[in-house]
Amino acid sequence: MARLNLKLLLFLLIAVVSCTLVTYIFTCGHPTTSQTSFVHRLKELSSSESRGKLYDELECSINGMYHISCRKEGKEVFIPFSFLEKYYEVYGKLTKNKGREQFEWSHSYSKVFKPTTPYNASGMFMYFSNYNVEVRDRVKCISATEGVPVSTQWEASGYYYPVQVAQYGLSHYSKNLSDRPPKRKVLEDGNLLTAKWQVPKGAYVTRNFDDEKFTHVLEFNSRDSPGISLKLKQGVDVVLSFDLRFLSMNGSLTIFLEDRDRAQIFPVSFVCSPVLIHVLNSSGSYSTNYGMGNCQNWNQLTRDLHIDLVKGHVLSGRYILKSKLSLKGHGQLDNLTVASSNHMDMFYSSSDWLVRHQDSSGGWPIGVKRKIASGKADLDPGWYSAMGQGQAMSLLMRAYYRSGKSHYLEAALKGMKPFSKPSTEGGVRAYFMNQYPWYEEYPTVPPSFVLNGFIYSLIGLYDVVSLAPHDQVGDAQLLFDQGMHSLKKLLPLFDTGSGTVYDLRHFTLGLAPNIARWDYHSTHINQLLLLSTIDSDPILTTIAARWISYMSGKRAAHN
Amino acid sequence: MARLNLKLLLFLLIAVVSCTLVTYIFTCGHPTTSQTSFVHRLKELSSSESRGKLYDELECSINGMYHISCRKEGKEVFIPFSFLEKYYEVYGKLTKNKGREQFEWSHSYSKVFKPTTPYNASGMFMYFSNYNVEVRDRVKCISATEGVPVSTQWEASGYYYPVQVAQYGLSHYSKNLSDRPPKRKVLEDGNLLTAKWQVPKGAYVTRNFDDEKFTHVLEFNSRDSPGISLKLKQGVDVVLSFDLRFLSMNGSLTIFLEDRDRAQIFPVSFVCSPVLIHVLNSSGSYSTNYGMGNCQNWNQLTRDLHIDLVKGHVLSGRYILKSKLSLKGHGQLDNLTVASSNHMDMFYSSSDWLVRHQDSSGGWPIGVKRKIASGKADLDPGWYSAMGQGQAMSLLMRAYYRSGKSHYLEAALKGMKPFSKPSTEGGVRAYFMNQYPWYEEYPTVPPSFVLNGFIYSLIGLYDVVSLAPHDQVGDAQLLFDQGMHSLKKLLPLFDTGSGTVYDLRHFTLGLAPNIARWDYHSTHINQLLLLSTIDSDPILTTIAARWISYMSGKRAAHN
Repeated sequence: MARLNLKLLLFLLIAVVSCTLVTYIFTCGHPTTSQTSFVHRLKELSSSESRGKLYDELECSINGMYHISCRKEGKEVFIPFSFLEKYYEVYGKLTKNKGREQFEWSHSYSKVFKPTTPYNASGMFMYFSNYNVEVRDRVKCISATEGVPVSTQWEASGYYYPVQVAQYGLSHYSKNLSDRPPKRKVLEDGNLLTAKWQVPKGAYVTRNFDDEKFTHVLEFNSRDSPGISLKLKQGVDVVLSFDLRFLSMNGSLTIFLEDRDRAQIFPVSFVCSPVLIHVLNSSGSYSTNYGMGNCQNWNQLTRDLHIDLVKGHVLSGRYILKSKLSLKGHGQLDNLTVASSNHMDMFYSSSDWLVRHQDSSGGWPIGVKRKIASGKADLDPGWYSAMGQGQAMSLLMRAYYRSGKSHYLEAALKGMKPFSKPSTEGGVRAYFMNQYPWYEEYPTVPPSFVLNGFIYSLIGLYDVVSLAPHDQVGDAQLLFDQGMHSLKKLLPLFDTGSGTVYDLRHFTLGLAPNIARWDYHSTHINQLLLLSTIDSDPILTTIAARWISYMSGKRAAHN
Repeated sequence: MARLNLKLLLFLLIAVVSCTLVTYIFTCGHPTTSQTSFVHRLKELSSSESRGKLYDELECSINGMYHISCRKEGKEVFIPFSFLEKYYEVYGKLTKNKGREQFEWSHSYSKVFKPTTPYNASGMFMYFSNYNVEVRDRVKCISATEGVPVSTQWEASGYYYPVQVAQYGLSHYSKNLSDRPPKRKVLEDGNLLTAKWQVPKGAYVTRNFDDEKFTHVLEFNSRDSPGISLKLKQGVDVVLSFDLRFLSMNGSLTIFLEDRDRAQIFPVSFVCSPVLIHVLNSSGSYSTNYGMGNCQNWNQLTRDLHIDLVKGHVLSGRYILKSKLSLKGHGQLDNLTVASSNHMDMFYSSSDWLVRHQDSSGGWPIGVKRKIASGKADLDPGWYSAMGQGQAMSLLMRAYYRSGKSHYLEAALKGMKPFSKPSTEGGVRAYFMNQYPWYEEYPTVPPSFVLNGFIYSLIGLYDVVSLAPHDQVGDAQLLFDQGMHSLKKLLPLFDTGSGTVYDLRHFTLGLAPNIARWDYHSTHINQLLLLSTIDSDPILTTIAARWISYMSGKRAAHN
C-alpha cells in the first residue's frame, strides 16, 4: 500500500510538471484563462474545500424519455443550459458585468412600456414612435402612386393592408412628436427659390405660372439630351419631396445616390409606369424604378430614398450620400425639397389613402384571403378588420385634430359603421356566447376573439370620443363602453396562469390554445396599461401586474 | 515576464506536492474518490482535451432579479437543479441505473391509468381499488354507529361527508373485485359454531333463540366479574364483525391487540356511549373506545381493528396480532367473525348510510360551511354537491346491482332531483353563460365550474342509465347527454396550454386562474379516458392526449 502511494505521489509530480511546461510553452509566457484557472484549481485542491469543487459527469434522464449529460458536484446536480433553452424556451447569454463574465437568464425576450402620462388621443400613439413599419420584411415598398406601404404578408404579389397603412401613419405621427424638428431645404419652387440646373444643348427650363396649381412652377424639356441635371449638395438627408407632372407621354426623375465609400452609384427613378417597383441590373450596376402611374396629372411625392433603395434590395441598410438629380422628358416640377425627415407628409399620405379607399359601408376592405386555422373559418377577400377600422380612426382623428379638415373626421365617424354590423353579415361585431359584444380583428365564423386587435379597436373608438365635436360623436361612446364591459369580463379567459392566449380559438374551434408569443403578451400588457390611464377599474392594473410577473417566470398558484 | 512565469512554475510544483501530501496523509493510504478523481483530473489536465474538461464558476443573473452560482465548461453553462426545482416546480432524484448513478428529472409527479376495457357501471370504479379512504389524515375515524368515515377536512369536530362516504364504499366495492377472496372464520353464531368462552365465577353464557333476530344467539352476563373472555388465535386478520346488543344499561366488547414484538397491548373497546372515539391513557398504556350509541338495539359492526387503532393515534401503521376478546355487562352476541377483509360489509354500510341520510329532495346535505375564495361565494351548511350526488348514485346503483334491493335503486333515482334544480335555489344545476348546463361540485353563486366533480356526476348519471330498469331511468339519459354536450364545449376553457385549471373561478370571480396541481390534472385525464370508452367523440381522446403530453413538459404551440 505504502509503496503504491509513493508511486502515486511520484506520478502526480511528473504529471503536473509536464502539463505545466506544456501550458507554459504554448502560452508563450502569457497566462491564459485555462492556465490561470488551472492554478486556481490547484489552489482549490490544496485547500480543505477541494472536495466540494470536484465534479463528476452524470446522466440525466428527462421524464424517462431522453438522456443528457449533466454534472454533479457534492449534492448538487447541474443541468446544461443548452437543454433548458429548448425545453423551456428561455433565453440566456454570456455577458460581462464589471469586467467579470456572467450568464444572463431571461424568461422572456419582450419589453413592457409603463405609461408615464395618461393616454392622450392627440398625442403619440402608444410606443409607435419606436415602430419602423416600412423596413419590415413583409413591406414590399412604399408605393409611388399611393405613398403608403405595400404588404406581402399574406399575398406575395403585394396588397394594401389598412392596418399597416394606419400603423405607418401613426408611427410617423408619433415620430414627429418625439424626434427633433427636421432639417428642410427647398431647392426649387419655380419662383423665389431656384436651383442651378445644368441644361444640355437643345434642352430648356423655364419658370412660369401654372393655372391649375395656381403658382409658379419649373417647366423642363430634355428633348433628345441625356437629361437636365442638378448637382446636389452631399449630405445624409435623403428624404426628398416634389410635385411633378409630365406634358410628354414619358419622362422620369432620377436621383443618383452613392454609398459612403464612393464605390458604387445607385440610381432611383420615378417613371411614368403602372409598375410598383422594378429593379434593373445592367452589368452589376443596379437601378431601381418606382412607377408613378399616370404622369399627366400632378403627383406629389415624399420619398425616403434610403428606404426606396433598401426595398429595391440593392442595398441593405448602408449609409447614403446624394450626388445628383436628373429630369427627362417634358414636364413641370415644383417644391423640390430635401429634408432629414418628413413624418407629417407620410402621416398625411396614409390619412389621405384611408379617405380615398374607404367604401360606402365605412369599411376599409382587405383584398386578400385570410386563413385562420387550417381551412377552418377562413376570411374571403373583402373582409373588414375591427383593428384596421380602429387604427384608421386613431389616425384620422389625429389628422382631423392637426389639420382641422372635416373630411378626416367624417371618414373616422363612417369607420365606426362595421362595429354595429354582425361579423356574420360582413361587419366586425361578434358576441361571446351571444352576450358580450367583441370587435373582431378577424371577423371569422365562429368568432376568434383576438385580444390585441380588439383593444386597438377600442382605442380607436376612444380617440373618436375624445377628439370629435360632442354633437358628432355618434355611437362612439356606446361602442367603447360596451367593448370595455366585454373586455373586463372576458380578460381572465386569456390568462393561462403563466402567459396569455392570443385569441379564444381553442374555445370556438375546439383547438389547442393559441399561446401568445412574448411580444404579443407584452402588447396585451402595454394595451391594458394604456387603458388603465383612462379607466380606473382595478381589474386592468391587477391583471396587467399579474401578466407582467409571468414575464419573469412567476406563475399563478396551483391548488 | 519570463521570470514571473518561472515563479509561477515553481509555485505550481510546491502547491501540488503539498496538496498531494495532504491527501496522502489524511486518507491513510486509501485512495478516496476525491483523491482518485484528483489524479483523474491531473491526467485530464496533461492531456489535450484538458481545456474542454476544465470548468469555472460563473454567476447567473436570473431575469436580472436574483443571482445564483452556475458552472461553465467550454461554451456550455450548467444551472444548479436546486434552483430549477423551485423555479419550475419540477422533480428530480438521484437513482441507480444498471449500477451507474443517474439523475431522474420528472416534470410531474402524477400518474395516468389508461383504461384497458370499456367502463362498466357494475365493475370497478375507475382506479378506486387503489384508494384507501379511511387512512387519510382528514378521516377522523370510522364511526361505530354509522359504519362510515367521519371527515375533519373543513370542520375539525368532524362531520359526515357524502362524497367521502361514497368513495369509501366505491373503493371497497372495487377492492372486493380486485383483491383475492378474504379468509373468514365465524367464531360464534350461538348455534352450530360455538366458541370456548372463559366464564368467571358468577358470570354465565347461554345460547338461545332470539325472537327479534329470529335466530340463535349467545347471551352473556359478566355480572361483577372482570369480563367473559375468549382467547383469539393469533393471526394477521384483524377485520372483526359481530352483531351485539345489551340488555343492561352498560356494557362493552373489547379486543386486546399486541404489536408484533409483544412489547405492548392495545385494547379497542366498543362501548355504550354517544362519543365517536375516545382514547384513554392510564400510565402510558392506551385504550381506544368507540361509542356504539344506543346499545339496547342490535348493532351490526364490521371493524378493521388496524384502522381503529391508527385512528386512535395509539399506533402509526405497525403490524398487529390479536390476543383476546372480552365481554362486559349483560347482552347478546351473534355472528362473531374474524376475516382478512370484509369489503362488501363496508360497501353496504356506506350504501345504507346514504339510504338513511338522503333528504326529501333527494339530496345528501353537507352540514359544514364551504369557503371557495376568501369570502367570495361561500356555501352555507346544508348544500348539496353534484359530485356527492353522482358518486352516491354510482355506489347505490352497484348496491342495487349486487343485492337486487329496490330501495338502493330508489335512492339513486331520487339522487338525480338536485340536477334539475338551479344552484341558486339549492340545487346543483348551473349554466355557463345561461346556455351550457353544468352540475356543480360546489354550487356557488356565481358558479365555480369545477371540472373533476362535474365529470364524477356524469359518471353517476351514466351508472343509473346503465343499471336501472329502462322504464325507471327517468331523466338520467337527458341529464347525462346535456352534461356531455356542455363538457365537450367547455373542456378547452380548462386547457392552459401547459396544464389544466381546476375550475373556472378566474372567469366567474375575476381571479387568477386556479391551476390544477398534477394529481388533479391526472384525474382530469383519467376521467376523460374513462368517458372515451363510452363516447367515441374524438375531442375526448384528443384533449386527453394533449393533457398527457403536458405531464412530460410539452406545451401548446405559441404563435
